[in-house]
Amino acid sequence: MDSPETDCMNDIRGLLIDLDGVLYVGNRVVDGASEAVGFLIDHGFPFRCVSNTTRKSRHTIAGHLSSLGFRIPENHIFTPPLAAVAHMKKTGRIHYYLLSTGDVNRDFAETDPTDPDARPDWVIIGDAGNEVTYDTMNTAFRHLMDGAELIALENDRYWMAADGLSLSAGPIVKALEYATGKTAIVMGKPSPAFFCLALQDMHLRPEQAAMIGDDIITDIGGAHRAGMKGILVRTGKFRQDSLDTSAIKPACIIDSVSRIKDILENRR
Amino acid sequence: MDSPETDCMNDIRGLLIDLDGVLYVGNRVVDGASEAVGFLIDHGFPFRCVSNTTRKSRHTIAGHLSSLGFRIPENHIFTPPLAAVAHMKKTGRIHYYLLSTGDVNRDFAETDPTDPDARPDWVIIGDAGNEVTYDTMNTAFRHLMDGAELIALENDRYWMAADGLSLSAGPIVKALEYATGKTAIVMGKPSPAFFCLALQDMHLRPEQAAMIGDDIITDIGGAHRAGMKGILVRTGKFRQDSLDTSAIKPACIIDSVSRIKDILENRR
Repeated sequence: MDSPETDCMNDIRGLLIDLDGVLYVGNRVVDGASEAVGFLIDHGFPFRCVSNTTRKSRHTIAGHLSSLGFRIPENHIFTPPLAAVAHMKKTGRIHYYLLSTGDVNRDFAETDPTDPDARPDWVIIGDAGNEVTYDTMNTAFRHLMDGAELIALENDRYWMAADGLSLSAGPIVKALEYATGKTAIVMGKPSPAFFCLALQDMHLRPEQAAMIGDDIITDIGGAHRAGMKGILVRTGKFRQDSLDTSAIKPACIIDSVSRIKDILENRR
Repeated sequence: MDSPETDCMNDIRGLLIDLDGVLYVGNRVVDGASEAVGFLIDHGFPFRCVSNTTRKSRHTIAGHLSSLGFRIPENHIFTPPLAAVAHMKKTGRIHYYLLSTGDVNRDFAETDPTDPDARPDWVIIGDAGNEVTYDTMNTAFRHLMDGAELIALENDRYWMAADGLSLSAGPIVKALEYATGKTAIVMGKPSPAFFCLALQDMHLRPEQAAMIGDDIITDIGGAHRAGMKGILVRTGKFRQDSLDTSAIKPACIIDSVSRIKDILENRR
């Protein structure tokens, strides 16, 4: 078989794979996704998972994936907190004030949380949920006015929580940008720097890799801007009309991540 | 005496007067301000006070002015909450969700706070201080997504509180605008509708009135756009370099509001 699907993977030596919407949707594993990941591991085909999740540490995400039946090593998972830590280390300025929830702070263990009396170099905003208060927003604001730079772990508007639509990190970032006149550095997808971090970990150049995702803008558009091919899945948040009306055209479209096994086998 | 000061008041039949920075600065009364206001009252010269304060009700502001020695009737004070109530009544939609602090809710007594089970027509954001939480922001956000319109009592970035710079209503408004894609209707100065509300209460047209303020942009620029003359005082937040670098040119500049007495006397 020599379908366009196979064609689009011809020169690909590694994959970046989104989590929610590609490997699972909510708590339901996508049919064949676990086998597809197992195939990659068994055949030593390089891949990394890239997710915009900012409510869980890498460790907790790895545990969640394991509980769903995926064999994915913790160090194969890349999230915006990891990118933020890499960015801080690269600049040599590692003092920060973090506004987030869950156990995301675990991902920052390599860097120094700011001494309460010291000025942080960075104010880092994640999807912080109930940690958002006037006090925490004011603390972040005052650090920014004292010279700290603003990092947004993500810039989403809202997400669907169990009890209804809920504000994500984006609105809090926008509030602080307006108050201070500063512009946030955005860490997660579709930032090219974020994709590059995962690519560098595989020692691959962008043109050697493809990104598999369910979001035409964040995953596919982001991959293209980073110099990679974008492969769209018809699972998760995929909507035919979003595809039809978008100026972004994926390198190929597959029913689900489970197709990867056939495509790579047929390529051999 | 026929100075430019007197000239600029020649056709003026009523005054709008800012509070903080014009009548008092912090808790210190501007020299001669109380006498100037007394002169206006004793001579039946129409005036109204227009302030962007959104942390105090009209009643509380009147009490504060009285404690400082000013004889200003409560119904002479116009604040953004009053403008919001007027706007709601004009549209016939009077159900609202208010995010504010202090006793500002008193100013909304004429309208119906929303039944917890009902959908509000309006989400109204003031400088809410510690009332800003993830829960209250999410409640406002969900009402907006359910069809409510957004009213900003003011759009300031921050103010100087006793313990340091503190976020004002503007950043919270910007957060909700970003999350919902909606644009807030701003109620306070420099909105022309706000000035007009106070002018209508005096039965005066804009060209018959002058605005006395210490803010070149909000007070003077706002007055000009509303069709009034703008008179800048050299008290409060007045800075010579802000005046020199501004494209906005006041009709005249006076040392303080205390000059009003002489100007009006010399005009007679």
